[in-house]
Amino acid sequence: MALTTPRTSPGTMELLPRKQMVFQRMMDTIRRGFERYGFVPVETPVFEVADVLLSKSGGETEKQVYFVQSTGSIEQGHKPELALRFDLTVPLARFVAEHEGELAFPFRRYQIQRVYRGERSQKGRYREFYQCDIDVIGKDTLPLTFDAEMPAVIHTLFSELNVGPFRINFNNRKILLGLFESLGVTEDQRMPVLRQLDRLDKIGVEEVRRLLMGEELGLTQAVADHILEVVGIRGSAEEVLAALTAQVSLPGATPLFALGVSELVQVVAALRAFKVPETHWSINLGIARGLDYYTGTVYETFLTDHPGVGSVCSGGRYDNLASQYTKSRLPGVGISIGLTRLFYVLCEAGIIQDGPSTTQVLVTQLDPALLAEYLSLGAELRAAGLNTEIHLEPAKLARQFKYADRAGIRFAVVMGSDEKAEGVVTVKDLVTGEQIRVPRGEVVARLAVLASGDGKR
Amino acid sequence: MALTTPRTSPGTMELLPRKQMVFQRMMDTIRRGFERYGFVPVETPVFEVADVLLSKSGGETEKQVYFVQSTGSIEQGHKPELALRFDLTVPLARFVAEHEGELAFPFRRYQIQRVYRGERSQKGRYREFYQCDIDVIGKDTLPLTFDAEMPAVIHTLFSELNVGPFRINFNNRKILLGLFESLGVTEDQRMPVLRQLDRLDKIGVEEVRRLLMGEELGLTQAVADHILEVVGIRGSAEEVLAALTAQVSLPGATPLFALGVSELVQVVAALRAFKVPETHWSINLGIARGLDYYTGTVYETFLTDHPGVGSVCSGGRYDNLASQYTKSRLPGVGISIGLTRLFYVLCEAGIIQDGPSTTQVLVTQLDPALLAEYLSLGAELRAAGLNTEIHLEPAKLARQFKYADRAGIRFAVVMGSDEKAEGVVTVKDLVTGEQIRVPRGEVVARLAVLASGDGKR
Repeated sequence: MALTTPRTSPGTMELLPRKQMVFQRMMDTIRRGFERYGFVPVETPVFEVADVLLSKSGGETEKQVYFVQSTGSIEQGHKPELALRFDLTVPLARFVAEHEGELAFPFRRYQIQRVYRGERSQKGRYREFYQCDIDVIGKDTLPLTFDAEMPAVIHTLFSELNVGPFRINFNNRKILLGLFESLGVTEDQRMPVLRQLDRLDKIGVEEVRRLLMGEELGLTQAVADHILEVVGIRGSAEEVLAALTAQVSLPGATPLFALGVSELVQVVAALRAFKVPETHWSINLGIARGLDYYTGTVYETFLTDHPGVGSVCSGGRYDNLASQYTKSRLPGVGISIGLTRLFYVLCEAGIIQDGPSTTQVLVTQLDPALLAEYLSLGAELRAAGLNTEIHLEPAKLARQFKYADRAGIRFAVVMGSDEKAEGVVTVKDLVTGEQIRVPRGEVVARLAVLASGDGKR
Repeated sequence: MALTTPRTSPGTMELLPRKQMVFQRMMDTIRRGFERYGFVPVETPVFEVADVLLSKSGGETEKQVYFVQSTGSIEQGHKPELALRFDLTVPLARFVAEHEGELAFPFRRYQIQRVYRGERSQKGRYREFYQCDIDVIGKDTLPLTFDAEMPAVIHTLFSELNVGPFRINFNNRKILLGLFESLGVTEDQRMPVLRQLDRLDKIGVEEVRRLLMGEELGLTQAVADHILEVVGIRGSAEEVLAALTAQVSLPGATPLFALGVSELVQVVAALRAFKVPETHWSINLGIARGLDYYTGTVYETFLTDHPGVGSVCSGGRYDNLASQYTKSRLPGVGISIGLTRLFYVLCEAGIIQDGPSTTQVLVTQLDPALLAEYLSLGAELRAAGLNTEIHLEPAKLARQFKYADRAGIRFAVVMGSDEKAEGVVTVKDLVTGEQIRVPRGEVVARLAVLASGDGKR
């Protein structure tokens, strides 16, 4: 039989076990953090009924959708009825609308699953990637305090993830939209203008000004200047809020603008009650977020040492989660961590290295006649909570050590007939190279101490 | 806008949060069990390059494959290049062949992911379901001791899963194939005969005999009787092995048959060294397994109280994992738990009920003026490791209790201005209805004790 070259599809991330363990630990940290704040788990099927998934989305999104079809369905010439989810928000909307009567509101859900986008593949862009989302969905109303809880969760999580210094930037989209109103920016221009503002950090203020005044958008110099002036307000939260408050009383400021400023003031006050340290957040009036469903607070999170990476945790407030599925009014606020991309970036930056294995102890096999002894010792170690592999294949001891070292297993246990006769066991630490002889009866307790803090991190 | 009915595709399992938590705890137990035995994690993309995925599989499997195609690719009239995995074994083969040089052998991997089959949907059959797999892959050789480790893992896992009594049945496929050789059953007949034997428990011995002698297979009465006699050997491991050993010395017994019996003897001896209690395993010569890649030991696991369910954990030994991708000889042995189906069965049997929430404490909001106090208390509880939700929405206390009760949160904390003045906090246990007043300074420690063993199970 001719051999097929084993390979994965471009745009997917597949990790060797020692990297997968690091990834898994990050996911566990995120999940633990979400649960710590009282979010509850939801998982949805990878595919949704295509009509249901795409009932709201625009053409841009549709181009990136992966459709799913069984052999039988293709043979019969049917159109695909299923499609892979492209985010976790639409499935959440479908879930909440479908199970509205069975859920307790405010509904706080977390969801950690992969999503799919049929993007052109390029370095660092993924067609399959993990999103780690939390959202709180209210029924009819949802107080602004929830908008302040999101940065509190981000602060806790990113501190625990150990990814270096970070800063949460946020804004209220009503401020920009209110400003547009007062400047006569039309409905049609609003989203394209927001999308250009979103690129400020990437392409710089002069380029954005040029685009705002360019053929496509055609804003006047005065309007573009005014927008960029407001968006450019920098400083401490007090300073930014003071500048905004001053603008509220200017002639021409609309009620929407005033509402946005007032919401921002409330969110900042609540953020302080949540004790999110001010070193970790800023008001940034340039944060617009490209997606059109945000209606109030919007967030982005940047790694201070890796500004080029862009936001690693983003989200915002929306007025109505599921208007395509239900007449109930379901306001919400949420954030999303694109974990696959974050992991890629941290690997590229050398921040993520292979860590210790989940396996903590290797019981080596020195003498096949003693197999029952090795199995007993292994069972004892496991009963004590130590992740233990028994080398079931006879091999030279040096090779078994090499295997453990390569696999990232820190401790190797050696027991030959001599040791057995003496009632001892040799424990070798493959990181330090240290080797100690321990009475057989004490080896489990001894290894439990040695391995604590190792492997299961 | 017309509303779209929110719904999921048939053949998928989607759970409400309190059931999802139970599912998640089962997955965690399985993962912990796998890691306890020194298996390391692998995750593969949900889709594989179609040619790579289907390079070995037969037509039968292909009919159940889901193909994946982006909007752009469909518009251009291309054939789908991607397909969803239908098991975790083919992706493992591809992974090991692709990364052979980077892995430590014997390679012990676990993988807990969903797989996809375009089956006709019916009650209890899923198109998307979780498989929890472990496999050990050797290079060139893999001793039989590994075959005995699998039942040890199954025994540990299923004991911890708390799914009631269970029994691991196993066999060695060489015994049946050797028997077929000696009886003149042709190459072409072997797999169909095995598949009929697989149905013994379902349709009974007389129906199987009828089918073996029927038009399609056409075995003689003598051959069918002989096969069913061997397959029907029952008794303790000693008795079965004694009966088989007696057959080895009969004229006509082939070397393959003898090898199968000898392997079974070795596996039983190793099983005893692993101390898997004999109450939990039996040799069952009727276990054939439908899949054609097994070449030695095969396993099935049955829930004693639910025999109709069929096997909930199956697997076996194969000579060569990845012959379609590499010339390296990669023998392996593995098992797979179909968790979605197992969960469904346990729910249907009433064994699985809603459990406590992952959220352990709800800090209620009695007085919006005390929000900062609630947030501080919440932060202290979280720092002590308690999963804590703060009721950020003002509401009547009774409604907040009802919310907690519905969400499965056991403890509610109440602090109004009276309590604040007295320096106390009221803690209500929503399961027992008990209510105690605790000094503010002691509430975290007190709740840590009360909630221990609850919620995080």
